Amino acid sequence: MERSSCDRLGSVRVVLLDLDGVLYVERALVPGAREAVGQLRSLGLALRFVTNTTSRSRPETLRKLRRLGVPLEESELVTPAALAVRHCLENGWRRASLLLPDDVKEDFADLEEDDERPDVVIVGDLGERFGYDVLNGAFQRLLAGAELVALQKNRYWLKADGLSLDVGPFVAALEYASGREAHVVGKPAAGFFGEVLASAGADAGAAAMVGDDVESDIGGALRAGLAAILVRTGKYRAEALETSGLEPTAVVDSIAGVPALFGA
Amino acid sequence: MERSSCDRLGSVRVVLLDLDGVLYVERALVPGAREAVGQLRSLGLALRFVTNTTSRSRPETLRKLRRLGVPLEESELVTPAALAVRHCLENGWRRASLLLPDDVKEDFADLEEDDERPDVVIVGDLGERFGYDVLNGAFQRLLAGAELVALQKNRYWLKADGLSLDVGPFVAALEYASGREAHVVGKPAAGFFGEVLASAGADAGAAAMVGDDVESDIGGALRAGLAAILVRTGKYRAEALETSGLEPTAVVDSIAGVPALFGA
Repeated sequence: MERSSCDRLGSVRVVLLDLDGVLYVERALVPGAREAVGQLRSLGLALRFVTNTTSRSRPETLRKLRRLGVPLEESELVTPAALAVRHCLENGWRRASLLLPDDVKEDFADLEEDDERPDVVIVGDLGERFGYDVLNGAFQRLLAGAELVALQKNRYWLKADGLSLDVGPFVAALEYASGREAHVVGKPAAGFFGEVLASAGADAGAAAMVGDDVESDIGGALRAGLAAILVRTGKYRAEALETSGLEPTAVVDSIAGVPALFGA
Repeated sequence: MERSSCDRLGSVRVVLLDLDGVLYVERALVPGAREAVGQLRSLGLALRFVTNTTSRSRPETLRKLRRLGVPLEESELVTPAALAVRHCLENGWRRASLLLPDDVKEDFADLEEDDERPDVVIVGDLGERFGYDVLNGAFQRLLAGAELVALQKNRYWLKADGLSLDVGPFVAALEYASGREAHVVGKPAAGFFGEVLASAGADAGAAAMVGDDVESDIGGALRAGLAAILVRTGKYRAEALETSGLEPTAVVDSIAGVPALFGA
């Protein structure tokens, strides 16, 4: 059963596609995802692939999409890393303590890694390596005056063994301990959507976000003025939608149902 | 330099003494602590030893105090464990998942440990064993419907290598992930102070709390109507007091200065 307000979608020229939970879940493509991307391109819509995933570097994410048969230009991929680097440089923060997997650090090459006297602590997805010592070290750097930047603040994501903690809870832990609020770079930050739209030369009224995360994809997009299409794959749970009080522009079973919303 | 409103302390009959940071720091007694306890007893004041420490069982805490030369009756020691057990039983929650060190679990013998289908997740001080897997397991139990009880929610405490994360940040992480608020048992919960006063047969106007934690000891006590004496040992930091907006009844350099406030 599909639910939508199709009028709102008539003006859309740019579609933002979330990756994990929308195009793929773990290592498998969502059925029909490749074809849906092709259909959206055939309709003349500009695409942006937007993700909060920070457990992988940009080059790795590009390779993964191409390996799954979803061709894209590098300029179509938007991750929080570049926005975080720019935010730090704009504020004169060059020395950064990186709570990130080693192979993601290449995205932060314009900063200088420094765990001794950092200007900023940047928190990404350490996954199972989030532990007491790592968090306590970050806390002590915050107490010593470092700023706190979070690549994203998602609550949970869908892993093979069920919904599992994402980066957000660990950011919340550091905020609570330090009494300092993180600057969040990824979805649902308004700045994130603003950057994506600027790169596509479109305004919010001409854009739609497709995502499985009620809060970060749907809530973030609606607050930024975009249309928001919720898919029932990935971390989608009916309760999460009900308790959110949010009204997506459309709700479809999966990415495979999205092209029809645009008249395919 | 001492600062106090001595009138308020004239009506005090019961003194609540925090342990870690007030009577001792790590394994060492704060200089003068033993004598101060003796002087307070000589003044005819009833004492209660109140702690949020949940990395040690009640019997171990008793042994530690006696080893340090601070004699006390078992009934004078108040820890969050017994209050948590009572709260669970009153709500019919018998099966508990315990995020606690093994040797603290004896304090929870009236509950049944169950990580598969718990009614409640109880979070205490796992210290360096707080890690992704432990927190993720707790999160999944909360998603499945378990309640969340925190023995305390302190932000940090003073370890040998500096201020370090306490239980609170990990409770905050679970609250953020699950969207569920923890029932906090220890200081600064009003119920904690209420229990202590009931056990001493005194009302808040006849009681004073001595602590090093601005928020949990001083803020909690003042909100519960007790006088509050801040000591400049343990986790005390001038900035924490300034930014709190709280006005302790008195501020002294250490526990050694407390008896003089009561006329010793």
